[in-house]
Amino acid sequence: MKPVLVSVIMGSDSDLQIMTGAAEVLEQFGIGHEVTIVSAHRTPERLVSFSKKAHKRGIKVIIAGAGGAAHLPGMVASVSPLPVIGVPIKSSNSIDGWDSVLSILQMPLGVPVATVALDGAKNAGILAVEILSAADPELLQVLAKHKKKLSSDVRKKAAGIEKLGASVYLEQIKKS
Amino acid sequence: MKPVLVSVIMGSDSDLQIMTGAAEVLEQFGIGHEVTIVSAHRTPERLVSFSKKAHKRGIKVIIAGAGGAAHLPGMVASVSPLPVIGVPIKSSNSIDGWDSVLSILQMPLGVPVATVALDGAKNAGILAVEILSAADPELLQVLAKHKKKLSSDVRKKAAGIEKLGASVYLEQIKKS
Amino acid sequence: MKPVLVSVIMGSDSDLQIMTGAAEVLEQFGIGHEVTIVSAHRTPERLVSFSKKAHKRGIKVIIAGAGGAAHLPGMVASVSPLPVIGVPIKSSNSIDGWDSVLSILQMPLGVPVATVALDGAKNAGILAVEILSAADPELLQVLAKHKKKLSSDVRKKAAGIEKLGASVYLEQIKKS
Amino acid sequence: MKPVLVSVIMGSDSDLQIMTGAAEVLEQFGIGHEVTIVSAHRTPERLVSFSKKAHKRGIKVIIAGAGGAAHLPGMVASVSPLPVIGVPIKSSNSIDGWDSVLSILQMPLGVPVATVALDGAKNAGILAVEILSAADPELLQVLAKHKKKLSSDVRKKAAGIEKLGASVYLEQIKKS
Amino acid sequence: MKPVLVSVIMGSDSDLQIMTGAAEVLEQFGIGHEVTIVSAHRTPERLVSFSKKAHKRGIKVIIAGAGGAAHLPGMVASVSPLPVIGVPIKSSNSIDGWDSVLSILQMPLGVPVATVALDGAKNAGILAVEILSAADPELLQVLAKHKKKLSSDVRKKAAGIEKLGASVYLEQIKKS
Amino acid sequence: MKPVLVSVIMGSDSDLQIMTGAAEVLEQFGIGHEVTIVSAHRTPERLVSFSKKAHKRGIKVIIAGAGGAAHLPGMVASVSPLPVIGVPIKSSNSIDGWDSVLSILQMPLGVPVATVALDGAKNAGILAVEILSAADPELLQVLAKHKKKLSSDVRKKAAGIEKLGASVYLEQIKKS
Amino acid sequence: MKPVLVSVIMGSDSDLQIMTGAAEVLEQFGIGHEVTIVSAHRTPERLVSFSKKAHKRGIKVIIAGAGGAAHLPGMVASVSPLPVIGVPIKSSNSIDGWDSVLSILQMPLGVPVATVALDGAKNAGILAVEILSAADPELLQVLAKHKKKLSSDVRKKAAGIEKLGASVYLEQIKKS
Amino acid sequence: MKPVLVSVIMGSDSDLQIMTGAAEVLEQFGIGHEVTIVSAHRTPERLVSFSKKAHKRGIKVIIAGAGGAAHLPGMVASVSPLPVIGVPIKSSNSIDGWDSVLSILQMPLGVPVATVALDGAKNAGILAVEILSAADPELLQVLAKHKKKLSSDVRKKAAGIEKLGASVYLEQIKKS
Repeated sequence: MKPVLVSVIMGSDSDLQIMTGAAEVLEQFGIGHEVTIVSAHRTPERLVSFSKKAHKRGIKVIIAGAGGAAHLPGMVASVSPLPVIGVPIKSSNSIDGWDSVLSILQMPLGVPVATVALDGAKNAGILAVEILSAADPELLQVLAKHKKKLSSDVRKKAAGIEKLGASVYLEQIKKS
Repeated sequence: MKPVLVSVIMGSDSDLQIMTGAAEVLEQFGIGHEVTIVSAHRTPERLVSFSKKAHKRGIKVIIAGAGGAAHLPGMVASVSPLPVIGVPIKSSNSIDGWDSVLSILQMPLGVPVATVALDGAKNAGILAVEILSAADPELLQVLAKHKKKLSSDVRKKAAGIEKLGASVYLEQIKKS
Repeated sequence: MKPVLVSVIMGSDSDLQIMTGAAEVLEQFGIGHEVTIVSAHRTPERLVSFSKKAHKRGIKVIIAGAGGAAHLPGMVASVSPLPVIGVPIKSSNSIDGWDSVLSILQMPLGVPVATVALDGAKNAGILAVEILSAADPELLQVLAKHKKKLSSDVRKKAAGIEKLGASVYLEQIKKS
Repeated sequence: MKPVLVSVIMGSDSDLQIMTGAAEVLEQFGIGHEVTIVSAHRTPERLVSFSKKAHKRGIKVIIAGAGGAAHLPGMVASVSPLPVIGVPIKSSNSIDGWDSVLSILQMPLGVPVATVALDGAKNAGILAVEILSAADPELLQVLAKHKKKLSSDVRKKAAGIEKLGASVYLEQIKKS
Repeated sequence: MKPVLVSVIMGSDSDLQIMTGAAEVLEQFGIGHEVTIVSAHRTPERLVSFSKKAHKRGIKVIIAGAGGAAHLPGMVASVSPLPVIGVPIKSSNSIDGWDSVLSILQMPLGVPVATVALDGAKNAGILAVEILSAADPELLQVLAKHKKKLSSDVRKKAAGIEKLGASVYLEQIKKS
Repeated sequence: MKPVLVSVIMGSDSDLQIMTGAAEVLEQFGIGHEVTIVSAHRTPERLVSFSKKAHKRGIKVIIAGAGGAAHLPGMVASVSPLPVIGVPIKSSNSIDGWDSVLSILQMPLGVPVATVALDGAKNAGILAVEILSAADPELLQVLAKHKKKLSSDVRKKAAGIEKLGASVYLEQIKKS
Repeated sequence: MKPVLVSVIMGSDSDLQIMTGAAEVLEQFGIGHEVTIVSAHRTPERLVSFSKKAHKRGIKVIIAGAGGAAHLPGMVASVSPLPVIGVPIKSSNSIDGWDSVLSILQMPLGVPVATVALDGAKNAGILAVEILSAADPELLQVLAKHKKKLSSDVRKKAAGIEKLGASVYLEQIKKS
Repeated sequence: MKPVLVSVIMGSDSDLQIMTGAAEVLEQFGIGHEVTIVSAHRTPERLVSFSKKAHKRGIKVIIAGAGGAAHLPGMVASVSPLPVIGVPIKSSNSIDGWDSVLSILQMPLGVPVATVALDGAKNAGILAVEILSAADPELLQVLAKHKKKLSSDVRKKAAGIEKLGASVYLEQIKKS
């Protein structure tokens, strides 16, 4: 069984729909991971004990998603020495996502959170893989291939539009 | 010696200039209080222990000021059963204060923070007095008088402008 | 019959859907309360007389919700010596809720409003209970239990995700 | 002595520097006016009595300036049947002026405030003159002339730049 | 036949749905009015000729609605000596309405536009009536009655909630 | 066959729905054009080679659309000496379009992008025609006619409203 | 004498300090140009006549700068068939520049303005040169060289930092 | 001599004042690093070649700072498989920093940038150390000690305020 290297946590199970994106990416790259709930506001002591122990359990990177006044990523970063990736989530009562973006991004000196785009859980997964690749040359090769794949996918679509013309292509993607 | 009823805390001593405003108001109303630093991001365990014990020490209201990704008020509110008043502070690297306002205001269900205006530490002090007056009819009388005082101050100034005319009055306040 | 300690007011019956959240929380904690409409803009004199008398009727806390150029909470606070909790409401013509948030939050010196999150009427109810508990040690115990309940609910959900895995859990909550 | 047709009010004497702009314009057009302080938050009852009586005293237009959670213009408009011109003021603790703009502009159905630009007291004065001219054909002529004057001033400056060239002209206006 | 005192104009017939609100209010107060399209960007010369002639045709107030980079109200105000009321409209490609609000509100010195709330065409109608009442004491009485009517409507609803309780009342308004 | 003078590119085929608007306008004015995908983030080398060669292939104007952290227009402008028109697109995870607007507009000294409105691909097409007309007096005539057509369309609608009245007209356009 | 190909206009001489940046760039590339004032709000008729005649006088591109509710670029674009480059200016009463950015950028269908960055007059100058180069292959070569010059300047600075180290380099640029 | 593990790059030497903060932190933790300029907009080819080679030279993490339409971090991330940390910088013509924050944060699927706070170069340095510690248990220990140091510094200041009282302490820090 693969060791668990990345912990994907979130403040509430209402964030799970978005946050599974991170788990899917990790799965795809073959990285052992765990998914659970740690609420900064409802389980502050669980937050502290989770954050203190994570690196001792062999975790290398923590991905933390939260919405509104999103304190989870920053609070984990304040306790754990591990790199913490923050995913701002546009929750139902959010002020257009600004609240979670600013609550996660604007951390004070000494306690950084690596923030990704609003609802960007998949990118958080990729960033975690990039971080792990700092110690794993083979993983770095896989990542380099992945970027080439992104590129060839775009080239194929570009060829499709150029061949079919914009309006035919547009109809085709609307059907699929 | 007066019992300490209100605890005024902040994330950093760079917030002290603003936050003394709360202490001054409490002093003026004769409310016992304490002032100290509790950093959500640099002393997370101190934050938990402070928040767990505050109501056992007889504290009735907590005023917490913080800037940027301001997690202090919300994290204290997540541990303590006391009412927590949050003061957003426009710190040096702030994005115009929006970060601290939203990080304090947009708390999730079950964990409210009573947020006041940007840099509004003095109003936080008055709100604390109002909360204490819920259990203290005499204090309520003092507050009612205070509102009348505000009113009569404005009436005096209004009379001044009406008597002197706007331009003479304006020159006088520029001199003073 | 329980004494009415909290008054839940709003500017229009279109705010009632949100504001009943405050009443439900007060009901749950067994706090006597009333619900009514007081419009700053359509019944300014009713606003003044309501605000002048509230504390004389034994009210201890006022919860006021309003949208757009939301003047109700601030105007009540300008007349009444009681603590006023403001609930910004995202009404239909609102500019994304910014108007009501800023109109309620940015009160001048001497007249604080304890502002909660956008559409945060339930949190306003909890904050009112916290304020009342300053004078009621038993209520403080109930609140402390309530925070523990929040915590154990999250722990149960966390256990569920850890046991079932994220994707199975996600399907389950989608069904329910 | 000229009858007082326009009342210029503001929430605090710290707004006087900006608001005298309105008075200067009224002076220039020969419109009788008064300048005083009426604070929505500190003198709510003065606000109600002022607003109830204004039209009975012969006032035709009210200009009201306020900053932060600026409730003065809207509250006056809720009591008085007169047209109310609101001037948002960028006060010291303002969040870049957004708070006063939105608090004045976003009034609910039935209670309009004629809002002008941030710190736009002079334009409020001109708008008041335009409103008075609805009943005063001579004043309308004066206004039409005033707009022509604005136009010829710009034409003179344009001629200056075209004649001197941009850099010489720029040095000249820097000196003056 | 009543003389046409108010001209309600807009930049495009896509704004008509909102702008008829102004016409309805004027109808209700018995004020003669006209409704038409004048586009700042598509008919700039029509705009100039309309604006130059309006006051000569007996128009007393112009209500102009526009969305996006909303130049119509400001351009009319630059030509006409009449008071111009601007209605910012949240059009389909708008950036949340901010573009039309700021394009109408932030007019330069000498050329005010009386701006009302986003999509606030009905309030523009009421403001026009208030402006006309400066020269019409009877109309002022009608307005004062109208404000009383607003007030008594709210009082009835308040009585309804107080009698039925919030939840029963809420169900009733959902049904209707 | 017409020479290709305008290249319409976009970062992803999810932008095609909006960006075909530019192609339609170019078609309408008879301007030879091409449509394809060039992703700044997924095909950075394709971006560089495309940008280096475009003017050598006879392209005169590049229209580039992108959403979110929209780097495509700016990166093309950094390599190509041609005028680049940027179209900010409100993509699915966008923060209300602000991200793409600011990422395209706020280019540094030396590398301008001609930015048009959010989702304004059709206007980008017209701007491209205007640019081409700098070297083509006939095209300039066609453009001048086009502006007159816009004007006469508006005049027809205005006549329709004036004739039918606002409510009848409104019903008619709702039906169509 | 060189023919005047670019007209640099602005709403007020207070914009001249910024707008001379455009003239300087045009000078540097040897493009004949003129600088003058055309105010949308104070000289609306001058605006119409200027815009109607510009292309007949041989002007190929118009650069228009304005602040606040910046209507100049859009109004010129509504009359003239020429490409119009808009420069949003952060004027003294601006709401942080947002007003001029949105008033210029968010133009309706059919009337594009090529908007550049806030206070980006120099980039407007470069964009004008790029547009002129569509009809002038030599100018295109000059532009390509200019981009290479930008590149070699950066490479020199990069070499400087790499050689001297960041702190020595930083001291040197502070001195100069 | 230590191997260079972190590359600190920026778009212009005007960003150096902020970005040296990252270098100072790396120095303090004994991490080999380099500092240089790579401009996305002025040296796009240097950007591609730098990004392609960095991981081959043994670089493990790239820190990239940029202001305005900040494309540097995202463009480097699009070419390099390494983790890229983005530092939004509030440059002189920035719209309050929003432009650089959004241009760096809102990256599309597949190309994450680990964004830190506005002007947060020091935090970028710490985040780089955290990332390196994923492969270096000793470094993890140093980081854990560093967090304890932050904590004890705060505790000392807290003790200072508690002992001296807020006003004496405030005077002392003003002097120093």
